[in-house]
Amino acid sequence: MIKEKNYTIGVDIGGTKMAAVLFDGKSVMADYSLATPKDDVNNFLTMLFALIEPLRERAKLDKAKIKGLGLGIAGTSNYREGLILWSPNNPVLDGLKIIERVKEKVEPEWEVKIDNDANCFARAEARIGAGKKYKNVFGITVGTGIGGGWFVNGDIYYGARGSSREPGMMIIDFATGISLEEGFHKITQNNPGILAAEAYKGDPLAEKAYDEVAKILGTAFANIAILFEPDVIVVGGGVMDSSDLFIPKAKKIMKQYIKDPLAKEVPVVKAKLDKLAGAIGAAMLVS
Amino acid sequence: MIKEKNYTIGVDIGGTKMAAVLFDGKSVMADYSLATPKDDVNNFLTMLFALIEPLRERAKLDKAKIKGLGLGIAGTSNYREGLILWSPNNPVLDGLKIIERVKEKVEPEWEVKIDNDANCFARAEARIGAGKKYKNVFGITVGTGIGGGWFVNGDIYYGARGSSREPGMMIIDFATGISLEEGFHKITQNNPGILAAEAYKGDPLAEKAYDEVAKILGTAFANIAILFEPDVIVVGGGVMDSSDLFIPKAKKIMKQYIKDPLAKEVPVVKAKLDKLAGAIGAAMLVS
Repeated sequence: MIKEKNYTIGVDIGGTKMAAVLFDGKSVMADYSLATPKDDVNNFLTMLFALIEPLRERAKLDKAKIKGLGLGIAGTSNYREGLILWSPNNPVLDGLKIIERVKEKVEPEWEVKIDNDANCFARAEARIGAGKKYKNVFGITVGTGIGGGWFVNGDIYYGARGSSREPGMMIIDFATGISLEEGFHKITQNNPGILAAEAYKGDPLAEKAYDEVAKILGTAFANIAILFEPDVIVVGGGVMDSSDLFIPKAKKIMKQYIKDPLAKEVPVVKAKLDKLAGAIGAAMLVS
Repeated sequence: MIKEKNYTIGVDIGGTKMAAVLFDGKSVMADYSLATPKDDVNNFLTMLFALIEPLRERAKLDKAKIKGLGLGIAGTSNYREGLILWSPNNPVLDGLKIIERVKEKVEPEWEVKIDNDANCFARAEARIGAGKKYKNVFGITVGTGIGGGWFVNGDIYYGARGSSREPGMMIIDFATGISLEEGFHKITQNNPGILAAEAYKGDPLAEKAYDEVAKILGTAFANIAILFEPDVIVVGGGVMDSSDLFIPKAKKIMKQYIKDPLAKEVPVVKAKLDKLAGAIGAAMLVS
């Protein structure tokens, strides 16, 4: 008797791109991605189903059953009720009862769950990526914004009220109350990609800006190491292509700022699952 | 048949004072305190045993058995090996194999354990103090220095390598790398008590200093709420007698700095066990 194959689908809904994977619990069987429609909720849902459709076809080809669909979404959501509360990079999604809307269009037996995109990243990297060997993994994503998630004791830590924690909101300057993410936005002018290209060309202003990025990220790494002392901090996200501009400097700042010898030793490593980490972590929500 | 009574002894070894309690698992049966000898390790140990002795007598009177001795110690220790690594407020203790030395002098069947003093505070407040109703409690002590501990899932969180976490080392200014504790020392000149007395007399410089204390503590509360979102933050320690100088202001700063609506709601409350919290939490180490 052939054992039935069980697949899940995960979609990482970013501010710029949506990436979807068909996942067998260990490996990605297929993946698709397209630009995120930001003009209208119905267009967004249409494209979401367009992304899922070829993955269903692919599962049929493998005679595999799809157990469910996980969605990783930037911003703040009510995860139990499947409601998007605040989606700063795509405001048309605010208030969308996404689980309800998705369930109308997929097989009734599919389980549908949502989570924060950075939590999905951290879950995937902790389970099958750069944190695979460890039990206590803090994931940080550096892209248009800064996100993160803490994977400990086999799952993401959600706070006492079951809410997603947002390390990007950590305050890094007591005098002004500026947060990690606000500091990052201010330095990169919401466009870290362009800034990175200029820094690579040798633009001294862009290089200086990346020194500042290194300082605020180094502070964030230091605080994570001091407060959580995870086995490892895994860094990924859209800006990782230019990570050599800031990761080595950020690590140096981190070591310089930490006094506690054990926290100083917390390694900071690059993510392994590349651009699909978020979608894989979303697929893991329903497996 | 009368059930055998089991007591434990806890000692909070601070930079200024040592406080000891005889604890029956729910209440303090007796307590003693005296100044911490800082000149010599042997004097320190002599006074530690002098503190314990009357508690043994009291237990005999109650026909109770003492199960063990817990010690709460400021600074960094190797908790498994019972070795004090770094005791900034009492350097003569550095390198002291305290469990070994204590075991030579107490009943051989006594269990002897050590922990960080702020962890002991958090444990006691979480179990029988201001955090009693909750499962996820972050304790912060404000005294000569700033300490803290996170009580979650029935015990203190120790980091992936089993080490005590020190929230006082959290960086609160990315530009300079200054920590919460360093900022506090700088403002209070290592003497928050005198500064508080001056502020109460209406000295405008002392009042201004307390505004700064409120700012750095507010930042710390904000970061704890953002990263951990505990059920409650419990604040105690030596400076709590003058807490009205800074707690209301710190709470205001905290709310002002936090964007995340759930983190904003994390309550900050005063500790309930007064000056004995640390000793009670130490006694809980062996019960």
